[in-house]
Amino acid sequence: MLLHVDLQSETPIYTQLAHQIIEGIARKQLLPGEPLPSVRSMAADLGINLHTVNKAYNLLKQNGFVQINRKQGVVIHLDAFPAADEQYLLRLQKQMRPLIAEAICRGLTNEQFKKMGEQVFAQFKDAEADGI
Amino acid sequence: MLLHVDLQSETPIYTQLAHQIIEGIARKQLLPGEPLPSVRSMAADLGINLHTVNKAYNLLKQNGFVQINRKQGVVIHLDAFPAADEQYLLRLQKQMRPLIAEAICRGLTNEQFKKMGEQVFAQFKDAEADGI
Repeated sequence: MLLHVDLQSETPIYTQLAHQIIEGIARKQLLPGEPLPSVRSMAADLGINLHTVNKAYNLLKQNGFVQINRKQGVVIHLDAFPAADEQYLLRLQKQMRPLIAEAICRGLTNEQFKKMGEQVFAQFKDAEADGI
Repeated sequence: MLLHVDLQSETPIYTQLAHQIIEGIARKQLLPGEPLPSVRSMAADLGINLHTVNKAYNLLKQNGFVQINRKQGVVIHLDAFPAADEQYLLRLQKQMRPLIAEAICRGLTNEQFKKMGEQVFAQFKDAEADGI
């Protein structure tokens, strides 16, 4: 799986990396137990700071997506991912607020917003089915 | 309308400010033509850098939410907000991807995700109706 960073984006680089890894897991491109590149090699490949890669890995660890193993380094979490608990649902709601606020300002209806979400869900499911 | 910043958050401060202002517009707490605090006064009130406030205002201007007026300073855009054009819809889709990827990893269904979106939509509509 190839990772890339967009230096022009408003999203911090470590967040971009964490998002791409989570998307890889959702698409089943990254499977439980699969090792991720070392901090040093990812930083060198992408031409970014070691600290930035560390921050991405720590965020993923904190949210239960990876385990940091002394021998193998960073691997995709072996067990089931943490369920959608109260804390996660609150965070998701908080993350949806600015998106929905802007959608309302631009006159998007709830129906249109839901349709967009459905399309994105379908993209992940298709990728999973195709093994892309 | 009171703005606040969360220094512990993973979201950059200028993004937090822009989001809160967009939420204020969605809730009709901020109306077209309404002036926002000057860069200097907002930076002083929140104890943040002038540059950070400037960055938030520029982002809002770029997306058509505010106008920067030599006399009145920064005001909420007087005309209708830019419609949901192709470019915006692509950006929205891009913003939804990491949220939906994580939702899939945590076993949330499309139905549960839509329900969450509906709740957030309803919160904005209620606030608008109540004039909060």
